[in-house]
Amino acid sequence: MKLKIMENSGFCFGVRRAIDIAKNATKKYEKVVTLGPIIHNPQMVEYLRKKGLRYINNISEINDEAVVIRSHGITYDDYKKLKNMDVKIVDATCPIVKKAQKFAQKLTKEGYQLVVLGDKYHPEVEALLSYVDDSCIVVADIDNDLELNNDKVGLIAQTTQSETKFEQLAYKLISKTYELRIVRTICNATKLRQEKTAKLAKKSDLMIVVGGKNSANTTRLAEISAENGCETHHIEVANEIDFNWFKGKMKIGLTAGASTPDWIINKVKNNLKKYIENEDKNS
Amino acid sequence: MKLKIMENSGFCFGVRRAIDIAKNATKKYEKVVTLGPIIHNPQMVEYLRKKGLRYINNISEINDEAVVIRSHGITYDDYKKLKNMDVKIVDATCPIVKKAQKFAQKLTKEGYQLVVLGDKYHPEVEALLSYVDDSCIVVADIDNDLELNNDKVGLIAQTTQSETKFEQLAYKLISKTYELRIVRTICNATKLRQEKTAKLAKKSDLMIVVGGKNSANTTRLAEISAENGCETHHIEVANEIDFNWFKGKMKIGLTAGASTPDWIINKVKNNLKKYIENEDKNS
Repeated sequence: MKLKIMENSGFCFGVRRAIDIAKNATKKYEKVVTLGPIIHNPQMVEYLRKKGLRYINNISEINDEAVVIRSHGITYDDYKKLKNMDVKIVDATCPIVKKAQKFAQKLTKEGYQLVVLGDKYHPEVEALLSYVDDSCIVVADIDNDLELNNDKVGLIAQTTQSETKFEQLAYKLISKTYELRIVRTICNATKLRQEKTAKLAKKSDLMIVVGGKNSANTTRLAEISAENGCETHHIEVANEIDFNWFKGKMKIGLTAGASTPDWIINKVKNNLKKYIENEDKNS
Repeated sequence: MKLKIMENSGFCFGVRRAIDIAKNATKKYEKVVTLGPIIHNPQMVEYLRKKGLRYINNISEINDEAVVIRSHGITYDDYKKLKNMDVKIVDATCPIVKKAQKFAQKLTKEGYQLVVLGDKYHPEVEALLSYVDDSCIVVADIDNDLELNNDKVGLIAQTTQSETKFEQLAYKLISKTYELRIVRTICNATKLRQEKTAKLAKKSDLMIVVGGKNSANTTRLAEISAENGCETHHIEVANEIDFNWFKGKMKIGLTAGASTPDWIINKVKNNLKKYIENEDKNS
């Protein structure tokens, strides 16, 4: 049995940056909170809570704490509220997410009806939607009909969306518009990770995808792996592994989301290695 | 044998407008010239020459005549030259062509590398190219490689291009760009004519396409007809018809370009009707 671990697994630039910013804030300010979990990884959020960084779900819970804006950004309304309060704001929004917000705002301002490929309940998209007008359409399933009311349409995506899906949606829009402005706001690291996951899935008999169950990018990796015809298990931590999965399997692939900390990936990796060594000895 | 004549054959809005403007100019001014033929139909140009509207090929040939700018427009350089000369300028540029020129200029100014679907030697495209910078690429064959040097690309088309080709080129560009701004500068009348020609060609055993051999939109109709599997003959005037073409054919389709005058279409139609009547009598 062989284990192949995908390169570039684990923290992306935006997540690493957000965590560094948050850690520094805990050193600089006596009391710090984040509005929503800083990243979509419960284990990392718990680790940071022990370091003094707890999260709240609503601005009304803030007293005199410094507030860290998490990697997914916050809504414009929330930002205005924070500005009006006498609190320190530490902005850890991922620069790629911020770029998407800026394009959303720009296209809306220039009279485009905005179409966003993404999940409208994801905090990144919720924040983005606060910068656009009511005509904006969020598309999760590209097979659904689109109700366009403007022949000038702008298309962007949640940063963790699939490139293939984005291109398919763009193609669908070409024939429906007079002017179509497509801005590929998808994160390159995400794209690369997705491509590598697809490749690894094709060569593996079983894939383990590690990361928060609430993490959009990890969930996408698990989907892509399954779409490429490979039995796939999405786990958050090492002890979720059921070694019965490996019966009759020869090639195991391992990958992890952009918000999965190294210590969790390493634990999974070591457990798998030990299991494989034992199996090889006994065979 | 049956003859089916396509609706909306003959002069489009832009051509009719250009000819009306030119005719009025011949009434208003003693001496009038156009820079290049007013439309791409030799018979109509000859008819207008007899009415006093001759065409010249170069600005240097102008003495004291009023100058009609033809439906395809002129280059920015030529326009500036005319402005600096003490001559009357009568602008008969098709408004749809002008809109394409404006978008070309706008996209270039806003930092997009421009891609134009069209024929770079067509006067409409030559005029359009005078409003853009050197990075602009004119694409006639969408299978050719594209040398892009900017991740911000604008795509437009010569107004008489095929929608299908335009959409295929757009799709090709989606994966090659960060930002792609597609403006469908194709004329709606052209689009409709092309769709109807394709439909008629599918139902006919033979297609006659009437219009100037130098007319881009008529040539496109003939191409579309042939692409739809129908034997196609592109003629300028009625006496080019060879009745041997019709041997063994049952359904004859007739269409004409946007610059083909009614009197030519009617002559062709009448000749065909007479031939069919005779054939039916003898059979």
